[in-house]
Order: sequence, then C-alpha cells, then structure tokens
Amino acid sequence: MDMTERISSRKNGYIGHLRRLGSDAGYRSETGETALDGEKLLREALSSGCELTGVLMDERRPLDWLPPGTRRYSAPAELLGYASPVKNSPGPVFSLRLPQPRLPGRVRSCIALEDVQDPGNVGSVIRTANALGIDLVVLVGDCADRASPRCVRATMGAAFRQCVAETDAQGLACLARGLGLRLVGTALTGTAVDIRQAKLQAAAVVIGNEGHGLSAELLRLCDETVIIPMAPGSESLNAAVAAAIAMWETVRQGS
Amino acid sequence: MDMTERISSRKNGYIGHLRRLGSDAGYRSETGETALDGEKLLREALSSGCELTGVLMDERRPLDWLPPGTRRYSAPAELLGYASPVKNSPGPVFSLRLPQPRLPGRVRSCIALEDVQDPGNVGSVIRTANALGIDLVVLVGDCADRASPRCVRATMGAAFRQCVAETDAQGLACLARGLGLRLVGTALTGTAVDIRQAKLQAAAVVIGNEGHGLSAELLRLCDETVIIPMAPGSESLNAAVAAAIAMWETVRQGS
Repeated sequence: MDMTERISSRKNGYIGHLRRLGSDAGYRSETGETALDGEKLLREALSSGCELTGVLMDERRPLDWLPPGTRRYSAPAELLGYASPVKNSPGPVFSLRLPQPRLPGRVRSCIALEDVQDPGNVGSVIRTANALGIDLVVLVGDCADRASPRCVRATMGAAFRQCVAETDAQGLACLARGLGLRLVGTALTGTAVDIRQAKLQAAAVVIGNEGHGLSAELLRLCDETVIIPMAPGSESLNAAVAAAIAMWETVRQGS
Repeated sequence: MDMTERISSRKNGYIGHLRRLGSDAGYRSETGETALDGEKLLREALSSGCELTGVLMDERRPLDWLPPGTRRYSAPAELLGYASPVKNSPGPVFSLRLPQPRLPGRVRSCIALEDVQDPGNVGSVIRTANALGIDLVVLVGDCADRASPRCVRATMGAAFRQCVAETDAQGLACLARGLGLRLVGTALTGTAVDIRQAKLQAAAVVIGNEGHGLSAELLRLCDETVIIPMAPGSESLNAAVAAAIAMWETVRQGS
C-alpha cells in the first residue's frame, strides 16, 4: 500500500510546485510538467499512459484507484482550491509530464496555427485534430502554451495523445519541406483559391491570428493561399472554427 | 448637442439597470435588453442598426461619434468596472435591444442546438452561421441565453444580424415542418449515416449537448440521424466545432 502524505500548510513544497505549474509557462517548460484538476482529466491522463508526478486529493475523498507508485498527497478542500489552476476546483489536483507522442512514420495531414493566443482555441484545435485523425498540429510563433491548464482542459484529454510541435515561421517551412508537405496558408485575399478546390492532403494548412491573419513572413513562405468562402459582410471565423473546417476538408479529400 | 448625465454613485438607476442586465437572464428577457462592453461591439451594434438604450462612458474618454438622440452617461472608470458585465472592462458599457432579424422568405439551411449550455459555444455557432450564410439558428431546450454578454461577445457582433429562434423539441419539429425542412439529428449510433452522404439542404441539423448527445425525445422526432466520422478512440467534438462542420457540409452541398 502506498503512503499518502498529509499536507496542512500552504507553504508545503508540493503546493508551491502545483501553483507555479498552474501559472508560470517558463516553469512548465523548465520542468516539462503541468498541473491539472479534475477526476475525468486524471483518468484520461492515466489511460493515455502519462507519467504522473503527484496527486493531491481532498482528505475527505481519497482515491482508491491510483496506480501503485503514485506520489499521493491529501489536504483539506481549502488547500486544494489554493493549489489548483482552476477556480472552484472539483479536485483532485495533479501534476504530470505532458507526453510528446512520436510523429507517425508518414505524415499526410497537418494543421498549423500562427499567433493564436487564446488557450481555449489552441486546445479546441488539438481536440479536433485528434478526433479527425490529423497527424500533426504545429504551433507557430506566439501561440498559447499547449501545456497550460486551460489549454489542456479544452482538449478534453486529446493533449495526452495528439502529436504537437512548436516552432517559428522558418521552422514550419523546414518541417514541412522535411515531411514532404506543401505549405498552404489561409488568407482573405482575392487571389486565394477556394479551400474546396485546393489539395490539402500532403499539406500543412496554416491558420492565422483572428485579428491580423497570417504574418507577412509566413505568407511569403506559403506555396499557396486558400480562402474559406464567407457570406458578404462577414468579417471572420473564430480561429478554432476555421481550423476545424480546414481539417474537415483535409479529411474529406483523403477518404 | 445631446446632454451627458454624469453619474457618481453606485446607486444610480442606470448603473443598477446595467448590472441586472449583465447578470439576470430573467430581467433581460423581461426588458428585451442586454448589457455589453467595448467599443468594437458598440460600433458593430450601431452599424447593424441596433436600438441603443444607453451608453456609459469613461468621463476621461468621451465618445464624439455616438448618433444623435443616444442617452449618454459618464462616470469614473471605477464605476464603469462596477457596471460592466466583463472583468477588466475596457468600456464603454452600453445597453441595447437585441434585434430579431426577420426570417428569410425561404429557409434552406438551419442549424439547431439542444441543451448547449456554454455561452461561448452558443456564441461561436451564431458567429459561424452568420459567416457561412446559414438562414436560421434554433436554440432548443436548455441552451445558454443568446442575449447574455458572454454569448453576444463570442458572436463578435453576429448576434446583431443572425436570425435566431428559441423553442423546445416539439417546437423545433413544428418549425421544421412549417418551413419544409427535414429534421436531421447528429448522433454517435451505428445506424447513423455519414454526414457527407446525408442531404443537409432543406434540413435542420441538430447538435446535442457534448456530454449527453441529443435527448431521446428529440431523437424520436428526427427524420434521420447522421454521424461525423471520427478517429478510433476519440470521444467527441466540441459542440461548436461539430456544428461548424455540419454547417460547412450544408453550405458545401448547396453550392
């Protein structure tokens, strides 16, 4: 039987670790860990084979199904709320190493986001990519941290299974060349091709920031630009929705 | 020149009106108004022909472009923050009657949501419907209030232009019959047809709650059920993403 360490102070080291993981992207990157909350996400993490580095349980609701060897902590509900990255923590609060699934041998489909800063949108794209069977997600430039609690939460566990890379515009172009993928940018320009007419298999389709679209640098690197046709007077789609439509079209063309 | 009423107390009637509109769905429904925040949304509301019922400006940043006849209020920034429905209010805070655009003479495309409770998802669906030219959005059962500040904000102004109806399952069936639309439910059952093979024009496509799917009552009323094919092991798509794919397929089939 594994021992459970009882925590009663906010100054405990594991509490501090969880709080820093929840709020500090630099610390997440340095440690390779993140902090999450909730039983559903914990079960998803375990079933996806993630390496848990600790679980903080409500002392009145011990968990009896944790795998042997898990570092267990218990504390009053108030301390869980203090340690948790979410408001109104349902608990348990836990820390894990976000796995990096290996690239499939042959990458046929890829969605890339440039400067998409909302963690909910980045998480939604990772979730959709996983559900539709897109081989690779690339986060380019200044995107939300894919290890942030809000982002992982929005993936509903797909963050534990989906292959995601992070790079800059030049890095994306290199990666695409290396994988034999054409670089297809989405844009609102008149010269762009209707997305239904473009070849999206063996391509990396890049979605830009909602406010500014793709950067000039990335646009220059693209082999082609495509447009999602919209009703007159409409300004734009939400980035996660535009990405979903692009991924759906990619899958559609592959089947 | 219109007069601007200066407000200095939290007890002012217009401040109370804004706060209730921001937090109380019953009060919004009773008055037919809602409270919003931000210059971009205010400009969208004006250009969409909404009836403003008042604008509360930061006293250090008066707006000189409001149309004649607008009821204007000014107050210290602290009071704007108190009155606003959003945290970290950029201001101005304003109230308006959410317009109900008329149904087009002939409705060809329709998306319906059942029990989708997240205001961000409902707003995203209204925004996508407007961008893709879907004639009608129907909110069925216990959906988020489309007049709530979070929902209107997520529409990025599409709430001022998109035709949206609210009803229950029986009401949706009636509405569909009246408009000559087939009722097509999305489901995860084995008997459901691949959405790419179903006829989505002249249909109302219904998306269920992410956790529970469509209600048994609504499923019984459907003429057909369709499925969005997913990768093995994937559980579900975000409701706004599933709706976006269904709307995209509808538009695709119509062009």
